[in-house]
Amino acid sequence: MLKAWTLGCAVALLACTTASAQDWTKSKWGPDDEIGAANYMKPELVMKAAQLVKTGKTYALGFPVGAEMPAYPPRGFKITVLQPGQAGIPGLGPNKATYNDDMLQGWVGVGSQMDGLGHLGIEHVYYNGNKLADFADPNGLKKLGIDKVPPLVSRGVLLDMAAYFGTDVVKEGTAFNTKEIEEAAKKQGVEIREGDVVLFHTGWAGLIGKDNTRFGAGEPGLGVEGAKYLTGKGVVAVGADTWGVEVVPFETKNVFEVHQILLAMNGTYILEVMNTADLAKDKAYEFLFVLGQPRFKGGVQSMVNPVAIR
Amino acid sequence: MLKAWTLGCAVALLACTTASAQDWTKSKWGPDDEIGAANYMKPELVMKAAQLVKTGKTYALGFPVGAEMPAYPPRGFKITVLQPGQAGIPGLGPNKATYNDDMLQGWVGVGSQMDGLGHLGIEHVYYNGNKLADFADPNGLKKLGIDKVPPLVSRGVLLDMAAYFGTDVVKEGTAFNTKEIEEAAKKQGVEIREGDVVLFHTGWAGLIGKDNTRFGAGEPGLGVEGAKYLTGKGVVAVGADTWGVEVVPFETKNVFEVHQILLAMNGTYILEVMNTADLAKDKAYEFLFVLGQPRFKGGVQSMVNPVAIR
Amino acid sequence: MLKAWTLGCAVALLACTTASAQDWTKSKWGPDDEIGAANYMKPELVMKAAQLVKTGKTYALGFPVGAEMPAYPPRGFKITVLQPGQAGIPGLGPNKATYNDDMLQGWVGVGSQMDGLGHLGIEHVYYNGNKLADFADPNGLKKLGIDKVPPLVSRGVLLDMAAYFGTDVVKEGTAFNTKEIEEAAKKQGVEIREGDVVLFHTGWAGLIGKDNTRFGAGEPGLGVEGAKYLTGKGVVAVGADTWGVEVVPFETKNVFEVHQILLAMNGTYILEVMNTADLAKDKAYEFLFVLGQPRFKGGVQSMVNPVAIR
Amino acid sequence: MLKAWTLGCAVALLACTTASAQDWTKSKWGPDDEIGAANYMKPELVMKAAQLVKTGKTYALGFPVGAEMPAYPPRGFKITVLQPGQAGIPGLGPNKATYNDDMLQGWVGVGSQMDGLGHLGIEHVYYNGNKLADFADPNGLKKLGIDKVPPLVSRGVLLDMAAYFGTDVVKEGTAFNTKEIEEAAKKQGVEIREGDVVLFHTGWAGLIGKDNTRFGAGEPGLGVEGAKYLTGKGVVAVGADTWGVEVVPFETKNVFEVHQILLAMNGTYILEVMNTADLAKDKAYEFLFVLGQPRFKGGVQSMVNPVAIR
Repeated sequence: MLKAWTLGCAVALLACTTASAQDWTKSKWGPDDEIGAANYMKPELVMKAAQLVKTGKTYALGFPVGAEMPAYPPRGFKITVLQPGQAGIPGLGPNKATYNDDMLQGWVGVGSQMDGLGHLGIEHVYYNGNKLADFADPNGLKKLGIDKVPPLVSRGVLLDMAAYFGTDVVKEGTAFNTKEIEEAAKKQGVEIREGDVVLFHTGWAGLIGKDNTRFGAGEPGLGVEGAKYLTGKGVVAVGADTWGVEVVPFETKNVFEVHQILLAMNGTYILEVMNTADLAKDKAYEFLFVLGQPRFKGGVQSMVNPVAIR
Repeated sequence: MLKAWTLGCAVALLACTTASAQDWTKSKWGPDDEIGAANYMKPELVMKAAQLVKTGKTYALGFPVGAEMPAYPPRGFKITVLQPGQAGIPGLGPNKATYNDDMLQGWVGVGSQMDGLGHLGIEHVYYNGNKLADFADPNGLKKLGIDKVPPLVSRGVLLDMAAYFGTDVVKEGTAFNTKEIEEAAKKQGVEIREGDVVLFHTGWAGLIGKDNTRFGAGEPGLGVEGAKYLTGKGVVAVGADTWGVEVVPFETKNVFEVHQILLAMNGTYILEVMNTADLAKDKAYEFLFVLGQPRFKGGVQSMVNPVAIR
Repeated sequence: MLKAWTLGCAVALLACTTASAQDWTKSKWGPDDEIGAANYMKPELVMKAAQLVKTGKTYALGFPVGAEMPAYPPRGFKITVLQPGQAGIPGLGPNKATYNDDMLQGWVGVGSQMDGLGHLGIEHVYYNGNKLADFADPNGLKKLGIDKVPPLVSRGVLLDMAAYFGTDVVKEGTAFNTKEIEEAAKKQGVEIREGDVVLFHTGWAGLIGKDNTRFGAGEPGLGVEGAKYLTGKGVVAVGADTWGVEVVPFETKNVFEVHQILLAMNGTYILEVMNTADLAKDKAYEFLFVLGQPRFKGGVQSMVNPVAIR
Repeated sequence: MLKAWTLGCAVALLACTTASAQDWTKSKWGPDDEIGAANYMKPELVMKAAQLVKTGKTYALGFPVGAEMPAYPPRGFKITVLQPGQAGIPGLGPNKATYNDDMLQGWVGVGSQMDGLGHLGIEHVYYNGNKLADFADPNGLKKLGIDKVPPLVSRGVLLDMAAYFGTDVVKEGTAFNTKEIEEAAKKQGVEIREGDVVLFHTGWAGLIGKDNTRFGAGEPGLGVEGAKYLTGKGVVAVGADTWGVEVVPFETKNVFEVHQILLAMNGTYILEVMNTADLAKDKAYEFLFVLGQPRFKGGVQSMVNPVAIR
């Protein structure tokens, strides 16, 4: 089963020297671990992050999501608002209570979303060596469910890659690797530390609703080497204002290799379609990041709206 | 249209003297306001709330939600995990990427949930005088959508009503009105202030999965007079570890009157099926409360997992 | 509750003289009847209809239905094909069984469909005087469910209205009333009898996929007077190659009045979006009509594909 | 890809001598054929079948299907009845039109259903040698869609296996092979011919709602050798009052091998959860069988309610 990955290493030989030193299928948090990089979060770091709140301004990092939101095919999403049992009546009881409810149909992975550790793997092997056959269940994953992820409360760091590249919208196919990440961080005067949630602002989300075709066809984003750099730093999650966080077209013939490095090999969460525009405008490069994801039992992803506070 | 409410006042005459002084259909935040009590949140309050973080401990207030979660009829919820396009193949690309996705079908109002201001009204009139006919749309409300609610970041206050009543599970039909609220707060040494999110711990959620029938048939909770007390204090949201936050059986023949007072008359949000057990156990009566709800466009409710940090 | 209808009568006074003689809320098949005009079907008529089979040619009257099928707002429909549990495996068992399944999400009333007697009423009163409050249930109607309709097996009659009007596509707003129906039938040499299923060919379905906007904005179809004529003849069902069978724009300010006459007042079924093109081309004006509708328990409509055999 | 099947042959060597003479991946109806055994239907056979109508009695072979219908895991099904836009209004227009609609969520393969030729294959190869990778599409199969199946109108033959075995409910695991089929047919005085639809009555559906666990855990049904016998006869479809038509537990370690023989190797349709009780009671062994399946575009299965007429 692991042959595939060995093969991947053969291709990018240098990078593998270290990687092959440790078996990616064995988590450093032990054989029973299901939450990966969330282990980096520590009370001390939460307290430090809370001290970043200096203005009381809050930011909703999730976008409004409706049927028109572009999504990775064949995903789609729709709510239907209805008024159960109220046809022709003034309301329930003497106080005439009336109400709306909403049903939903679709895919979880639409719009602002968090990828859990059960999302993407390598040849049907997922984080901590979990083989799909052992934890797959159409009614909800038996391991690595999104419901198990604790609240992600930590220091958030925004890297404004649009500013770094001196543009409004970073071009598709632009890879963020160590050089770009370090230079952008340095330019902003921030450093990336263990336990951080790193968010890239690229301006790409500005295409939503304006040029959905371009939005979906590619994106600037994290490169393979940059993914290794960030996981090496011990970040909890990596996000961006793009649909997939990683650079597309991919750097090599490999497909979603950055996802593999983050989710499968390191247990690092991915936050997609984040609304980073206001953070970038405010040059809010450090903040308290708080994410409580809806806990779909055995879920793969979750629709989220993380909050940045500073 | 408003006759109904006038009538309601006639019934409970004393309470109405004040209420009728001001027309509930006109929000104090102006005719265009769609977010109600979220207006109470102010940067100063956010900063003060952040200072409540003293241990770095976090609490997920949302429960895991699966098909077995009891829900208000006819609501239900289900996810389906699938592996699109991966039948019989080792994975995508030379790196053999494989993945799970999840679809969802059901109702938003299942499990830990937030009621938006478009949820419940009085004779088809909702918060700020919005008539259903003017903003209803099966594809998403045209006003009062849950997507418009800003992040709720404020001081959270837990009132441990189980401790107050000296029991593990407060009995169904037990109403929390001014007396109970004030006494419980006093006992805990906390006071309720403008901008707070007030959560009641009753032990009721302990019935989930053990006695779903009893769980759904009634609940302890906020009474009509208590709802007026809390909205008078200027709270942003009221939540509980029950399915409906308000006392059931209702105190009078009125149906979901507390919902009407909170949502329609005051724009105060409701947080249902909150996991308050650990807060109660830790006697965590004050904390930083952070809620970024998934922003379903024009949605009525949202599946949530607020985070308490202290 | 019945005031509304009395009022309707006041508007169209002459037509009401007879109608008011009998109360539409009392079915001629007795107070317990839930199947309406399906009662017209008799074994003798089935046998006679079977004798219409003279060439052995069959016609599928249902169209293929996918997500792109235009539908009455806000209805929509979507299937998702998946391969449960087959990611990365060659198949189940030594014989390597592999399979596809499909999930569906959406509304029943999309594409070729049958309206049951629980579909449309008059001021919340439905066929045989059933008040909505008495039989409504979000999980399935307690009466008048589509599952109760027996197989509709009878003589089918096609009225080629396109040929009658000498056009390929009859213009929207063209009403078919007694004059048009009788003349078209006479021109074709057929007569309409008790127990028949009458289908109108208008060419309107030819717009599907070509001009969905025009398709949905109006349609030629049955008029109010024509509906009374057909129900007076004792037909079991009326269908057409249009989305609503009745003429749109409506003849008066009344809304879906033909639906009311057919479904609520007479228990006559409606068959929408029928593929009548091949019948018309073959001048197949009489045939054995067979419809076994999927029996959604307590369902309002059903997705159908009736078969014409001649 | 075909190794698997060759292997299967090696196991059941005798049966393969003939089978291997012809390649199952090449349909006898040509390389472009997508409808398989439906090709057996001929106008002459339709006419002959119509002559079987001698009493005018009709039978609905589909069961009512609701959320409580047992289904092959993880399948489920649910409709929701709603009244769009009618909260608090007396109806639309002066004529006060009111209406119900229904939404559906779930799987197609629940209750009375037809398996199309895209349903089940051998190591990801389906009828006529179609490889999954070539025709799979989550939005609807690109080949072998259920929408392509013409109306199935032919002679229906009921084999009352309960009567044959002298019981009300044939025991699970009871295989129907050539001996049983021929003897049952002989006992009833019918013969199976090319173009027939063969339905087995076993009494098994009587367990639905009474003992769903036993219903789903096994079933009597067609055996491997019997499947070859029937396809050799040129039947169009095989059905039964069971959930899977084929005998469970399987006769060998092979899994759904009868499905493979019928669907993949011969293009013979499968009709599951058929209501055969009334046919059996009436000793209606020969009849006109008519099935117009809802034509879900690119669908795998269809919810059906075939009609028997005699």
